[in-house]
Amino acid sequence: MTAHQPKRGRSGGRAGNARRGATETIAQMPWQQPINIDRPTEPLPPEGVAAVHDTAMRVLEEVGVEFLNAEARDTLAKAGCRIEGENVRMDREWVMEMLTHAPSQFTLTPRNPNHAVTIGGKHMAFVNVSSPPNVMDLDRGRRVGDMGSFRDLLKLTQYFNCIHIAGGYPVEPVDVHASVRHLDCLYEKLTLTDKVVHAYSLGPERVEDVIEMARIASGLDHSTFEASPHVYTNINSSSPLKHDWPMLDGAMRFARRGQPVIVTPFTLAGAMAPVTMAGAVALSVAEGLAAIALLQFIRPGVGVALGSFTSNVDMKTGAPAFGTPEYVRATQMTGQMARFYGLPMRASNACASNAPDGQAMWESSNSLWAAVNSGVNLVYHAAGWLEGGLIASYEKFVMDCELLQQIQRYMEPSITATDPDSLAFDAIAEVGPAGHFFGTQHTQDRYQTAFYSPFMSDWRNFEAWQESGAVWAAERANKIWKGVLNEYQPPAMDDATREELAAFVARRKSEGGAPTDF
Amino acid sequence: MTAHQPKRGRSGGRAGNARRGATETIAQMPWQQPINIDRPTEPLPPEGVAAVHDTAMRVLEEVGVEFLNAEARDTLAKAGCRIEGENVRMDREWVMEMLTHAPSQFTLTPRNPNHAVTIGGKHMAFVNVSSPPNVMDLDRGRRVGDMGSFRDLLKLTQYFNCIHIAGGYPVEPVDVHASVRHLDCLYEKLTLTDKVVHAYSLGPERVEDVIEMARIASGLDHSTFEASPHVYTNINSSSPLKHDWPMLDGAMRFARRGQPVIVTPFTLAGAMAPVTMAGAVALSVAEGLAAIALLQFIRPGVGVALGSFTSNVDMKTGAPAFGTPEYVRATQMTGQMARFYGLPMRASNACASNAPDGQAMWESSNSLWAAVNSGVNLVYHAAGWLEGGLIASYEKFVMDCELLQQIQRYMEPSITATDPDSLAFDAIAEVGPAGHFFGTQHTQDRYQTAFYSPFMSDWRNFEAWQESGAVWAAERANKIWKGVLNEYQPPAMDDATREELAAFVARRKSEGGAPTDF
Repeated sequence: MTAHQPKRGRSGGRAGNARRGATETIAQMPWQQPINIDRPTEPLPPEGVAAVHDTAMRVLEEVGVEFLNAEARDTLAKAGCRIEGENVRMDREWVMEMLTHAPSQFTLTPRNPNHAVTIGGKHMAFVNVSSPPNVMDLDRGRRVGDMGSFRDLLKLTQYFNCIHIAGGYPVEPVDVHASVRHLDCLYEKLTLTDKVVHAYSLGPERVEDVIEMARIASGLDHSTFEASPHVYTNINSSSPLKHDWPMLDGAMRFARRGQPVIVTPFTLAGAMAPVTMAGAVALSVAEGLAAIALLQFIRPGVGVALGSFTSNVDMKTGAPAFGTPEYVRATQMTGQMARFYGLPMRASNACASNAPDGQAMWESSNSLWAAVNSGVNLVYHAAGWLEGGLIASYEKFVMDCELLQQIQRYMEPSITATDPDSLAFDAIAEVGPAGHFFGTQHTQDRYQTAFYSPFMSDWRNFEAWQESGAVWAAERANKIWKGVLNEYQPPAMDDATREELAAFVARRKSEGGAPTDF
Repeated sequence: MTAHQPKRGRSGGRAGNARRGATETIAQMPWQQPINIDRPTEPLPPEGVAAVHDTAMRVLEEVGVEFLNAEARDTLAKAGCRIEGENVRMDREWVMEMLTHAPSQFTLTPRNPNHAVTIGGKHMAFVNVSSPPNVMDLDRGRRVGDMGSFRDLLKLTQYFNCIHIAGGYPVEPVDVHASVRHLDCLYEKLTLTDKVVHAYSLGPERVEDVIEMARIASGLDHSTFEASPHVYTNINSSSPLKHDWPMLDGAMRFARRGQPVIVTPFTLAGAMAPVTMAGAVALSVAEGLAAIALLQFIRPGVGVALGSFTSNVDMKTGAPAFGTPEYVRATQMTGQMARFYGLPMRASNACASNAPDGQAMWESSNSLWAAVNSGVNLVYHAAGWLEGGLIASYEKFVMDCELLQQIQRYMEPSITATDPDSLAFDAIAEVGPAGHFFGTQHTQDRYQTAFYSPFMSDWRNFEAWQESGAVWAAERANKIWKGVLNEYQPPAMDDATREELAAFVARRKSEGGAPTDF
């Protein structure tokens, strides 16, 4: 292994590829949703929360939000909102009344009920990277996303127990025509994974197709399917202060069918939002609540979540930055607002780095610790994100899963238990000042489960690490995803269901799929 | 720049070295101690704190700690402790009485009073990597530490404003004979930096020499120097339950002269401490308090801090692991105990990785966020640590400084201000639903200082990053430390002081330095 490897422990270009095929068996943690047992970090005093709330309400009352969807405006007019052209102003009393209908948590049940996911409360859920146009790995470099990489990344999504939801497309398969892409993508997603799936709000045909395919995969009839959450959508406002037609159309379709909607304004401070973080958060909250109020009016009690994507730009270049100090604080502030409104909250594992290097991991660590200490329920892009979401990285996916597992382990209350066995006075007295704890019964009884066991961190000393090729983290991740793709087994699906799904796809393709005029 | 670079954006071996000489001017943040404005994360309920306390006290009362120093034992006997051979048992009432003397914060003033550092309260201070036997950089790989690398790392320590203290030797200069090493090292440290310095407790001669050299550098007479803290030592217990002779000797010398002592047990759960984290923390607290009580008896009110180095081993290999979920929780628990006792707390920026890669940065991020959310006052090894402290890395030093600056920025209350200007209602109303915030007066007035400005993160898009050579973080850090070493200017020192220091070193060398029989 060392012969082809340059001094710095990185296998060079094509020469190093031959050795990268080995299957690695991963001892990963079991499926489990972390329960966030930490008290959130709350930088805003109560009067700060009140001030952000008041600003968001003033924006809704005095400035208004553009709803570029006549049906949404008609609905809001019936609710008593003030409509002027596309601008809608809503009173805080009505908004707050609508929020009383929103559940503080709800459960999404996919075709495999063992993979049901609770959104809200103290639950955390991790979603794969979603929607990058490009894909990258160490062997092939960056390239436009295609169906092959789409399938690979779905296999990783299914394989890793720490990924709870198969959210947006892990990469956009640009080699499939847009009119039928959603059909092929959902077929792959529903057969390669059995986790909760998501539908893009990209026009009524796509939304209806995806909901119907999720229903077929679940084996439920229409009324049973719509009686509880099984599939969800995520909509983004077009900041500042605009909700676009297809997003609103999809959100309203989901709400009517009792399926949850996450509303995530994309408010980059200094660009689409004020340069001050409180202002950016207030704008984001206003945009989010505007849509959530509409959805609660349409279907009181439908599951919703308030998304936060507030970060800052690099003021030298205008480039978006992620995992920054300002991003962390904005996420914490939004967490306070979400709890103030009693809403589940979404954020992301975001980074700006272009490679799965040290920068990627410190930015991701900042984002993930922000999710932990902000009380975030749903962590989007939890594995695989690079370049501010423009690249889905195979290696980063694997590296992120190591971080996600660490957070999952961190949330296990057993670590900080203080029962007599955990306090271990007897073991301390037994060993005394001269001994070692490894051989004690207290240790032997517990050592196999006492600590987090990594699947890709290398904890060996330098000599052992060098002996085995001095492989850096990203290169180890490269071997691991190949092992995972080798090992991957699709989840069970009965033949009748698979045939029904395939027949649906074939029929809708024969009908021409969905319009591509967006 | 791209010609020599392999596809993956890493300059290969020797071929890439030529381009690594360019000076990079760094726009770094000003000298400033972060004030930790966050409420700490507290996994233990009050009864958990009481249970860890009770266990630590029972260890001191019933098991005892070995003090391998007759003077310490004699002192403790006078204080009423029970001595049996080298074992000392102390009652909780006496320990708690001694703790009432310990200050909750104190200020260390180095030869440049502008670099005074407050330890305790909500203050954070960052210390350079300390004590690795080996040094590493991307050009030369890993090698045994020498005076050249020692000097280089001190220059980085002085250059980066986010490093507040020149702690232990940033690498052990093994090419200098041990009998005179402390003399050369302190001469270099006191002339290459003007930050707070530290003395190893490695025998009376070294301790006395270093204190005297710090006094000479400060330009103060003996009584003025000893009237307030100027220099400090850090001692480690020999876990479990043992304080060695030189550590106790040095600690007592420091205490008598009014100079602070940090007591840091090295309690790896499953090895030198129980496999359960509460047990490991209780043991660590017992060992720490045993020494602190002694020091408060000797000099009531002398500055002390409780160190935490509780982590876990890899139970497959026995290798120490750092930045693990268990490490984070142990740090948080120790933070609760330090606040319970009213003591400043020390922890570390620890990692196990052998290279400045993604693993190094996620482990360091875990450790640094643990320091933040545990209320840690003094972060040792804050920049430059690899391989569990066995390697000082030039590149990691630079990468860590980017993280430290981010934490410094994160702690600025202005980020979460909710005054009307920060809430920016008027800017939101002015821009409305159709605009962009970049051109507004609100943005223009603030954009230069609104956000953290990195010195080594690359936030450009992929194309621009690729165009400039697709350089990964560690390689960028490589260029930066070269730039810093080029730019470095020693801090001012008057000639008389420098001559006095040099004369002291020459005299002590002529006397043979210090014994090397340790």
